[in-house]
Amino acid sequence: MPDRTDPFLPPDDEGRTLARRLLAEARHAALAYADPETGTPSISRIAFGLDEAGTPITLISSLSAHDAGLRAQPLASVMVGEPGIKGDPLTHPRLMVQVRAEYIDRSAPGHAALRDRWLADHPKSKLYIDFADFGFVRMTPVSALLNGGFGKAMKLAPEDLRP
Amino acid sequence: MPDRTDPFLPPDDEGRTLARRLLAEARHAALAYADPETGTPSISRIAFGLDEAGTPITLISSLSAHDAGLRAQPLASVMVGEPGIKGDPLTHPRLMVQVRAEYIDRSAPGHAALRDRWLADHPKSKLYIDFADFGFVRMTPVSALLNGGFGKAMKLAPEDLRP
Repeated sequence: MPDRTDPFLPPDDEGRTLARRLLAEARHAALAYADPETGTPSISRIAFGLDEAGTPITLISSLSAHDAGLRAQPLASVMVGEPGIKGDPLTHPRLMVQVRAEYIDRSAPGHAALRDRWLADHPKSKLYIDFADFGFVRMTPVSALLNGGFGKAMKLAPEDLRP
Repeated sequence: MPDRTDPFLPPDDEGRTLARRLLAEARHAALAYADPETGTPSISRIAFGLDEAGTPITLISSLSAHDAGLRAQPLASVMVGEPGIKGDPLTHPRLMVQVRAEYIDRSAPGHAALRDRWLADHPKSKLYIDFADFGFVRMTPVSALLNGGFGKAMKLAPEDLRP
C-alpha cells in the first residue's frame, strides 16, 4: 500500500508533459480570486489561452466580479483539465497553478500579435474582444500542483510548465 | 443595447430553477479556498453532492491541500455547471456560491444516512469513503452568483438555492 502520509510524487517528465498538455489544450479555466470587499476566496469561469511564450492569458471584462478582485489582489489561482463524460471526475487529470495577474494595456508592444493568437484559439471571442471593457490579463505562474488522480499528485515549478 | 454598466439582472424564478438544477446535477465542483500558509486564493476539484436539506456537501481527504485550507479558513467558494462539448464555454450556465465549510464528525447524528445518500449519487466513492482520512464537509451557502452567459448574471440568496 502506498504511503498515504506523503501524497506528493517527485516531479518527472511524464508529469511535466501532462501539465503542459493540459495548459495547451485548455480554452477555459476556473479562477480563484479574493473577493475585493471581504477577501473571501471566490471563483469564476474564465477564458484561457497561452501567449507565444507559453504563459497563461485570460480575456476579461472590467464588469466582471473577478476583474475587481484581481485588481485589488493579483495573487490568484487557475485550474485547467476538464473531467471526461465517463468515469470518476476526481481521477481525471487537472492542473492547479498559483499565479500573479498583470493587466496588459492595449498599447503594449505585442498586443496585436496576442490578439491575433487569441482569436485563432478562441474564434467566438471576436464578438466581444474589441469591446472597451474587455482586456487581456497575463497570469504568470508562481507554483503548480498536478493531480493525475488519487495518489498521483506532483508539485511543479514555473519552469516545468514552459513549452 | 443593454446597459453594460449594471451587469446584474433582478432575481427571478427562471434563475432560481436553473441554480437549483445546477446544484442537483453536479457530482463535482471547483473549490476556491485560502492557502493555509500564504492566504493566496487557491483552487481544487472536489466531489460534490447535496444533503437531504439541499445543502452542498463534499467528501475530502485530510491529505488534500484544500483540507488544511478549509480548516484554517472556512469561508470558501464553489462553482458548479460544466461547459458542454460544443459552443463557447463562457455562455454555459454556472453557479458560484460563497460558503462556510463545516466538518461533519462520523459520530454526528445523520452521518449514516448522509453516507448512504452520498454512495447512491457517487457509487465510485465506495472505494475510499471509509478510509480514515476521508470525511464529509457541509458547505452552507452565504451568497450566490448565477451566470447564464453574457448579460445574464443574477445575484441569489441562500434561500433561493433550497429545493
